[in-house]
Amino acid sequence: MLLPLICGFCYGENQNIIIWIFSIGLCLLFGFGICLKTPANKTMYAKEGFVSVALSWIVMSIFGAVPFVLSGTIPSFVDAVFETVSGFTTTGASIMADVESAPKSMLFWRSFTHWIGGMGVLVFITAFIPLKGSGNFQLIKAESPGPSVSKLVPKAKSTAKILYGIYLFITLLQITLLFLGGMSFFDSVTLTFGTVGTGGFGVRNSGIADYSSYSQIVITVFMILCGIDFSVYYLLLMRKFKAAVSSSEVRCYLGIIVTAIILVSISIYPMFGNLFDTVKHSAFQVGSIITTTGYSTVDFNLWPEFSKAILVILMFIGACAGSTGGGIKVSRIMILLKSIVKEIRILAHPKSTLKIKLNGRVVEHETVRAVNVFLVAYLAVYAFSLLVISVDNLDFTSNFTAVAATINNIGPGLAAVGPVSNFSAYSPLSTVVLIFDMLIGRLEVFPILLLFSPYTWKK
Amino acid sequence: MLLPLICGFCYGENQNIIIWIFSIGLCLLFGFGICLKTPANKTMYAKEGFVSVALSWIVMSIFGAVPFVLSGTIPSFVDAVFETVSGFTTTGASIMADVESAPKSMLFWRSFTHWIGGMGVLVFITAFIPLKGSGNFQLIKAESPGPSVSKLVPKAKSTAKILYGIYLFITLLQITLLFLGGMSFFDSVTLTFGTVGTGGFGVRNSGIADYSSYSQIVITVFMILCGIDFSVYYLLLMRKFKAAVSSSEVRCYLGIIVTAIILVSISIYPMFGNLFDTVKHSAFQVGSIITTTGYSTVDFNLWPEFSKAILVILMFIGACAGSTGGGIKVSRIMILLKSIVKEIRILAHPKSTLKIKLNGRVVEHETVRAVNVFLVAYLAVYAFSLLVISVDNLDFTSNFTAVAATINNIGPGLAAVGPVSNFSAYSPLSTVVLIFDMLIGRLEVFPILLLFSPYTWKK
Repeated sequence: MLLPLICGFCYGENQNIIIWIFSIGLCLLFGFGICLKTPANKTMYAKEGFVSVALSWIVMSIFGAVPFVLSGTIPSFVDAVFETVSGFTTTGASIMADVESAPKSMLFWRSFTHWIGGMGVLVFITAFIPLKGSGNFQLIKAESPGPSVSKLVPKAKSTAKILYGIYLFITLLQITLLFLGGMSFFDSVTLTFGTVGTGGFGVRNSGIADYSSYSQIVITVFMILCGIDFSVYYLLLMRKFKAAVSSSEVRCYLGIIVTAIILVSISIYPMFGNLFDTVKHSAFQVGSIITTTGYSTVDFNLWPEFSKAILVILMFIGACAGSTGGGIKVSRIMILLKSIVKEIRILAHPKSTLKIKLNGRVVEHETVRAVNVFLVAYLAVYAFSLLVISVDNLDFTSNFTAVAATINNIGPGLAAVGPVSNFSAYSPLSTVVLIFDMLIGRLEVFPILLLFSPYTWKK
Repeated sequence: MLLPLICGFCYGENQNIIIWIFSIGLCLLFGFGICLKTPANKTMYAKEGFVSVALSWIVMSIFGAVPFVLSGTIPSFVDAVFETVSGFTTTGASIMADVESAPKSMLFWRSFTHWIGGMGVLVFITAFIPLKGSGNFQLIKAESPGPSVSKLVPKAKSTAKILYGIYLFITLLQITLLFLGGMSFFDSVTLTFGTVGTGGFGVRNSGIADYSSYSQIVITVFMILCGIDFSVYYLLLMRKFKAAVSSSEVRCYLGIIVTAIILVSISIYPMFGNLFDTVKHSAFQVGSIITTTGYSTVDFNLWPEFSKAILVILMFIGACAGSTGGGIKVSRIMILLKSIVKEIRILAHPKSTLKIKLNGRVVEHETVRAVNVFLVAYLAVYAFSLLVISVDNLDFTSNFTAVAATINNIGPGLAAVGPVSNFSAYSPLSTVVLIFDMLIGRLEVFPILLLFSPYTWKK
């Protein structure tokens, strides 16, 4: 919160400066408060990692919501928590109808939560704050997206530092490119936070529609880049070009993007009538949805059903594991689809012994099992959420895509929660359900389920 | 086709009698034709079983469609195949806008396909026609719904006969009850075929809405009874009451039904205002959807979103394995949900060794794997179908529930494919996709996938 405080100084928001100082004080008070009791056993296993991550995200979101409420930007506390969770989980779903009237420091904080959440809040902490004990890797494991976590280097702390270094470099590069293209500095910084974190909060009511084509193209490219597994950038940095290019997940991810852009372009061409605009809008929306960013340059809710169906399917696929994007993740989809092919081959030739491979390596049985259980838990949460929010009596398309947009950390859905709408139509109960969907999606289901499971708390 | 021929005689449909004789002749000609070539190797493994079942269902549906086209009941051949596949797969989705104007013998055939398809076409053949070779069980295995097939008695032929005996008994009982309640004999017979086969074709344009409350209640009870695993009835017949009652799948199935009826009743009470009508309509629609029958007494498309969301979720759950109903099946859902609980317990206590149990028995690892692969293949087919039919530019709710209603063999969906509508709005391409969805749903994905897989045809 020091950065929004500085931002408040720069824009002379005297009243908000007090709010930021108060909020920082509150965090420090709570922080020192919970440090008073030292646990007897500091060893951290998977369970402790999961539960710590789940609790941290919830607590942080509650404290992160305080400035919004105090400043009157979002008067309702539940709504403010929704907005903050939406920020940290890089969802970008908003309950704010008018963004432009909000104070700059609040908008800065709103976008900055994307940047922190993108790479992981606890990854951030393990990278920069000296922590005692061996719990670092368990925390990173519980927080990182994807079916398996690869340590780039043996020490978890160093891995976190390398990832954040790459992340910071990409961030500065995009800010520079946007600023040089004529965007204001404030917009360049906040939109970059939203892009590299694959979040999706904007600072204009029209989203990204009113910026120049140059800016829109820069954002498209950076969204897609931030949907790529960050360890690929590490390999590039280490000059291991062959290994970097051989990632079948990234290839598949880029293949899906190109195919989707072509199909959507064909579908929407009659709406624009020229190739440049068609491909520009198609690429922007496809990139925005598959990376689960959620920015929009047009109201794709008005597009033909075929394009919308493609976007809905991309919502579920999501980005690469190890990126800042959400969704089921390309590598999980690949493992799942390969298991179908394996089954067909085994049925056709029962004597054949087959292993599922990804990136040239055999996928362990444990990983395949975990991916399957993930899918089931994901679908169960999905069905439950759909049921509860349908009590509000919005139409099926809105409800279905509201859950899709939150659990996959995208932001906008279709119909009542489309790109030019917001989530304010839902009741507080539904808002709470969607808050948990965002957390469940970002933390990949199990940390939140474990938090509420009686088995976790049994001795 | 002998039965509709007799029906045509009874109602004096002279022109249709010729059509039935011609169709029977065509089937015989084709049948003897393919018998001319005897295969060198008659051994039947899983692969041959799957492919035979897939091909049989496709061929039978094509021949079954002939009378509809020739009589002019359904002039388009693609539409007629859709209607026949919808019959055999016990889906009950119709492209006919006006049912009442169709000739009786055609309506009889339309409903009779439900009865044949309900228990399985090839189960029917193995029960009544002397077949050489050892392929019976492979055929039954490929055709029977559910994660695992239980032979009631060691010989597959005898199992098929017992199942058909029970099926016939239930059929005759329902016909009698409906007829005694004042329904016409023709309606009693055809609606019973639609009920016990969990199909859903009616003989009135208003569906089941205009029949007496007594008839509606009888149909409700028999729909729910036919969604129960038929081996439970065999156990009852053998006086193994304890074993029959201990089936956790049936308990769960009944539990879901009761819960859904209560929730829907609360939701729709304001629409009816009295408890009897509310519960009657709630029970009818819940029973109709979970058993994947698809009959309706009211236009549930006009119900509150919460009730509709419950119905959509029931569409996916489906009936018990080993029943005539479709969907994912209650036992599969139970295995999948138990795998989540298992995962949570293992994450909480890594040293614990847990097995998934169903009906008091440990579910084999192979079955769990097969259920997971089934789910993935099912979802992949779902996403692909949704994408293709969305080209027709109908709204998302219609497209989503059209696929749900066909792949789960239900019949009506919501919006443009709701209970008072039909599937005629879709283009021939979409109709073909939905035809395959019905077959894929009824045969549980793999027979159709194997049919089109290059691995199957490789030596």
